[in-house]
This record gives sequence, C-alpha cells and structure tokens, in this order.
Amino acid sequence: MKVKLGETALVYPIPIVLAGANVDGMPNYVNLGDCGIMGLNPALVFVSLNFGHHTTRGILENQTFSVNMPTTDMLAKTDYCGIVSGRDVDKGALFETFYGELGTAPLIAECPVSLECEVVRGFDIEQRQIFIGRVVQAYADEAFVTETKGGRKKIAPLTELRPIMYALDNTYYSVGEKIGTGYQEGRKLGKG
Amino acid sequence: MKVKLGETALVYPIPIVLAGANVDGMPNYVNLGDCGIMGLNPALVFVSLNFGHHTTRGILENQTFSVNMPTTDMLAKTDYCGIVSGRDVDKGALFETFYGELGTAPLIAECPVSLECEVVRGFDIEQRQIFIGRVVQAYADEAFVTETKGGRKKIAPLTELRPIMYALDNTYYSVGEKIGTGYQEGRKLGKG
Repeated sequence: MKVKLGETALVYPIPIVLAGANVDGMPNYVNLGDCGIMGLNPALVFVSLNFGHHTTRGILENQTFSVNMPTTDMLAKTDYCGIVSGRDVDKGALFETFYGELGTAPLIAECPVSLECEVVRGFDIEQRQIFIGRVVQAYADEAFVTETKGGRKKIAPLTELRPIMYALDNTYYSVGEKIGTGYQEGRKLGKG
Repeated sequence: MKVKLGETALVYPIPIVLAGANVDGMPNYVNLGDCGIMGLNPALVFVSLNFGHHTTRGILENQTFSVNMPTTDMLAKTDYCGIVSGRDVDKGALFETFYGELGTAPLIAECPVSLECEVVRGFDIEQRQIFIGRVVQAYADEAFVTETKGGRKKIAPLTELRPIMYALDNTYYSVGEKIGTGYQEGRKLGKG
C-alpha cells in the first residue's frame, strides 16, 4: 500500500555543498542542497537560491559562482553557513579563499573539491532563482589526486573525500560502503 | 596545493533515481543521476536527459514524469535501466507500475518513494533536455511511514530506505551513518 505525502520533493540524499559568490567584492558562502549536475559533457551544474539570499546578489552581479564540497570534518562550519546570512556575518572569514581563472568566483581552500562556474543561464521560477553554470575549472586538493600510468588524474574515492549528505528529515549523513560499479551490475540481468 | 581537473562536474555523491515516462502509452524507466531538488516550497525537481533518450520523447509527449527512489536491493535492475534503451527493451516489464493523479506518469510500486511530477518548464541546453517538474504527489510505501502524535506523516530515515548513491568514478555507494542535524551543528559556532 502507498501512502500519499503531498507535494514533497523527496529526491535524496542530496550532497551538501558550499556555494560561493563575491558580494560587493567580498567572498560569501552558503550551505545548499539544491545543487546538482545537469550534464557531464559539457560539465553543467546548477544552484537554486532564494531571491533574498545574499549569495544570489553576488551571482547576479558577477555571473560567476563556485561549488565547494565540504567534508564531514567541516560539518559545523558548513551548517553555520546555512544558518546565518552574509548580510549579518562575514562568512568569507570562516575559510581560506582562493580565486581561479574567472577571478570573481571565490573557492574554499579547505574543501577537497571546488568548482569554478560561469553562468550560462539564469532564470526564476516560483520564488527561486536558478543559475546553471558551466564548470570552467575543477580544483582538487593534491592529497586526493593520484596520476594513473596513462597520465590521467584520478580523484580519491568518496570514502576518503568524506562529503556530507543531507536528508529531508533534516539529518546529515556520511557516505557508506561501495556497493557496485556503474554499467556493470545490470549486466547480470542480460545484454548490455 | 590544488590540482586542476578541467571541466568536470564534480558535485557528488548523487542520488540515483529511476525516472519514468509513458512512451506511446507504455511505461519506460531510465537510471539517472542528473536529477535533483530545485526547491522545497513549492516542491520542484528536475531531470536532465539526452535528446536521444526514449524517456525524453515520453516527457515531451505527456508533460509529466515520475522520479522513483530505488533501494540497494534493486541495484542490478536499476543499473540495467541505464544500460539498455526503451527502444530495444520493454523496461516497464521489470517493475510493477501504478499511476496516480496525473494518469500518465508511471510510478514504480517496488520503490519506497515515488514522485509524480508535472512539467512546469522544459528547455534544452548544450545537448541536454532539462525538465523542471512540480511534485503533484509523493507516494511512500506504508512500511516506511509512521504517523506522529500530531497526525503528521513521517518517512523512515535513510538508513532504512537504503537509497543508492553514485560517484563520478562510476561507483555506487550506500548511505552511511547519521552525523548531525540541520540548523543545529552550526550553532556551536555562534548565534543562529
């Protein structure tokens, strides 16, 4: 039997990220779950923000933003960035910021992975401001990158990166065990 | 030191879902990671598909789709839905399908959570077809729903739902431990 839960966006767990933007020339970060991948090739990501967010103003101003992956060690700071507004608190002071190729998208040095994004489309829908960004450059901490024999740079598995996930019952989770390989598990059922 | 990884959409882990659509009146499902939340109130979700996907045609036809959360038990079937196309294989036959209020968005009975969505915006961007849907109704298996004293329906924690996550090194993961509560962890750092 199915139970109806009403108009609820139960797509989760969602990876928690710190989205960054310069606001009046100063870095600001916000804790977001409404962020995700829209395509791999080309590399497209989106963030969805309230109109009122301080970060929204910065993205509109510069047409650039960043997406930073915090680790479970950074949980308190990450959650804090979702509690207070950049209008009241200098959230840029919480982290070491660096800039990449675009010059206006602040990136967090403590995060193992950071993406520098250029807005390719922005629109509003039902009180949300959506920004779709092309990833201009992805940065990873060298501690998490190995080079394969073929010279390809390979990033560490999630069990080492230890990102934070969020569930819609307002709970943060860590990543569990590896349970399979893409485009392999299904072959047990038939032709690929 | 940071290492540059190029134009890579490293936002993960992503929750793996089975997106559903009727194509020529028959249910079809595809394994997707390019899916997420765009807003909670109103409840907005999106799916990003290749133009060529069989599912894309169905969504364009009906302007409705579903998002179903598979569990780790369903890993082989779920992965299989990303390997084969609905043009070649009747993927509707893999699951028990039910329909909700919209009548044209096929929902998977075996999934603990399914969302019935109506397209509120569709557009293409860089070879991807994006559909933003309003969640018209969320369905959960009664085994995973409890009623609180106040009569509110509460869904089971992720450790019971056991969704599948995917990392961009082509690896599936399970959910780990609960590590904190939203809007609480950050209070350790100061005012909320």
